[in-house]
Order: sequence, then C-alpha cells, then structure tokens
Amino acid sequence: MDKKALYQLSYGVFMLASKAGDKVNGCITNTCMQVANSPTRVAISVLNTNYTCDLIKESGIFALSLLDDTCTFETIKHFGFQSGRNVDKMEGITFPKDLNGIPYLGWQTCAVISCKVVESMDLGSHTLFIGEVLDAKLLSENAPLTYADYQNRVKPKPQAVKEERKIVGWRCKICKYVYEGSELPADFVCPLCGHDRDDFEPIYE
Amino acid sequence: MDKKALYQLSYGVFMLASKAGDKVNGCITNTCMQVANSPTRVAISVLNTNYTCDLIKESGIFALSLLDDTCTFETIKHFGFQSGRNVDKMEGITFPKDLNGIPYLGWQTCAVISCKVVESMDLGSHTLFIGEVLDAKLLSENAPLTYADYQNRVKPKPQAVKEERKIVGWRCKICKYVYEGSELPADFVCPLCGHDRDDFEPIYE
Repeated sequence: MDKKALYQLSYGVFMLASKAGDKVNGCITNTCMQVANSPTRVAISVLNTNYTCDLIKESGIFALSLLDDTCTFETIKHFGFQSGRNVDKMEGITFPKDLNGIPYLGWQTCAVISCKVVESMDLGSHTLFIGEVLDAKLLSENAPLTYADYQNRVKPKPQAVKEERKIVGWRCKICKYVYEGSELPADFVCPLCGHDRDDFEPIYE
Repeated sequence: MDKKALYQLSYGVFMLASKAGDKVNGCITNTCMQVANSPTRVAISVLNTNYTCDLIKESGIFALSLLDDTCTFETIKHFGFQSGRNVDKMEGITFPKDLNGIPYLGWQTCAVISCKVVESMDLGSHTLFIGEVLDAKLLSENAPLTYADYQNRVKPKPQAVKEERKIVGWRCKICKYVYEGSELPADFVCPLCGHDRDDFEPIYE
C-alpha cells in the first residue's frame, strides 16, 4: 500500500469545538463530510487522544468552524499545536456562541455547523461521530480553506537544514588517499593516482 | 438552517465501483475521508438508491478512483448521469482491475484505493461504509479534482435562458394606459398622464 495515494483525498480545515459543563475546548481537524439529508447529517472523525474528543463523548454536541482562505498559521497553531488539557485555548478571547453555547470562530471562517451526536463508532485511533445538523450559518463570502491550501500555502516551510558537520579531511574516491585538513586546495592533485579535487569527497568529524 | 453553509465543506470527486458475482457497476460520488490509521480506514457515504450501493452491500468490497484535474465532463456523465440498473457502464471499455477484481479508471485519475467493508450504518437516504484499506496506488502526478473544481470548471454552465416571450404591448406604470404593439416608439409619451417611454413596461403574449 502506497500511503501517498491516501494523501490525494481532498479535505477542508476546521476548528472543532465542544463543551461539557464548564469544560470548553477546540482543536483543528480536517475530516467532515455531509453523509445524509433529511435529516441532514455530517460525519467527523476525531483522534481519541484529543481533549475535544472527550468533551464530545461527554456532551454529545459540537460546533465546526469552517476555516476560510484568510486563515493564518497563528490560528491553526493556537488551536492545533497545543492541548486543551494543558492550556485554556479560549481564555482571553471573546467568541460568538452557537445555539448550544459552544464557541465558534467569528473570523477567518466562512461557515459554522452545529450538531448533536446521533451515532458514534470507535475506530481504534479515532472515533467517528455522526452529527445531526441543528444549525448552519454562512459567515463570509471567502472560499473555504482546503487541506491542500494549508499544506502548500499556510503552513510554514521547514528551513533548509544547515550543513553543520565539520569537515576534517578529504578522501580520493579513486584510490582512497586521504588529505588531512578542512580545506582542500583548489589545485590539489592526488599524490598517489593523480586525480584532481573533483574526485575527492569530504570526511566529516 | 442555511444549507448553503454546508456547501462550504470541501470534497474530492470519485468514481466508486464495486462488483458482486457477475454484477459490476460504478458511480460518481464526492464523499470519502480517511477516518483512522492502523489499520487504515476510510469512510464513504453512498445514496441507498444507487445500484453501486446494492453491490457494496452484497459483496463488501469497493474501489475508489480519485479523479484528477484532467477529468472531463464526459467521464462524470458516463458514470454519474445514468444508472447501472439500465445501462452496462463497463461495456466496451477495458479497465485495469484492483486486487479484488474491481475495475478502476486508469486515466483522468491520480490514485486508486481498494477496500473491504468492516462496518456500515444506514443513515436513511445514504449508507455510510467504513472500509479497511487493502491497497492504495498513485496513478498520476496530477492534482486531485475537487468538488469545487468540478462545479466551477468541469460542469457545463447552463446556457442563459433566452428571452423568447413575445411582447404584444406596453403598459404605462403610472396610469396603466396600454399601447398596443410590440415596439414602443422612442419618443412616445403617454396620452393620458404625459410620462415617457421609461415609465412603460412590456406586456407579454
């Protein structure tokens, strides 16, 4: 199986929030699809280790903020790169709330979908929840952020790894003669086989 | 509930095929997401009235061809706009086959995912199938076709409805005087209230 084939599935990017009693949390997910109409139902899949997953299991309600193409990496980082078990991600931010009292994003978001869980299925790593849609609202005219957009445009590119290993010598690839020293002179010629600098490779510390 | 909010969910476009005994069929769907890893599982939702849905229920196997951005409307039309109950969509075409012997598209397709059903759930209009991924292959370097691409670029635009109704007269919007005739002269003035051509509206046959 070539897992890269699975990367070709298309997804959106969402801030998925839930509350149970006083506990409120939100995380970033990329799985939601409408799976039925009359009544309108969506399916989401959530990592079992996510705190938001615990809250959905406890209360059976969730709100999905559909991030749009103005979404910044800071938003993804705030909700996606830290756990609600350690940090109150909602602290100090005033969120609009849906009909269940669950906070959603009133910015960088094109729509919000509010659900109650009608079925769930433990799939090992994840739990699949089927949500009946209680309310759905358009929030902006912006295009939804796709997961491909996130990967290609929003997510910072890793900086090129600098070559930090120290060169202590050079080896002739032809006859294995070793020159000791970090800098091989430009006009150096192998004293054994006569090949020049182009046929030497670095020896690292 | 504003259903337009649900249209902001992002999807791919797929040719979903199955076989049961001698019966083989494929249809066009837009719902598939990976819902778990180890083992790798995907969820698809299929209209209960689709013949392909019957075949998947009977055999418990399916293959999903992930259409790519070279996909033409003819392909969508062939698999999506006619029913396998009336037409043999596979007739006269040589398809590659997956490990279960199910045909997939070897063209206009960036990947194929082969599954066996491990769970299913009747959601009224649709059945949700959880498929364990048995095999997955990349077929091209082309970008996957998204459902938004399909709507905006691949699907033919409806031709502008021509105004074919015949004008038989003009009515003064001020005093309701009626001028009989298809062409109102440019310098016409209402003989009753004195308003000009701009205050007249057409009367259709």
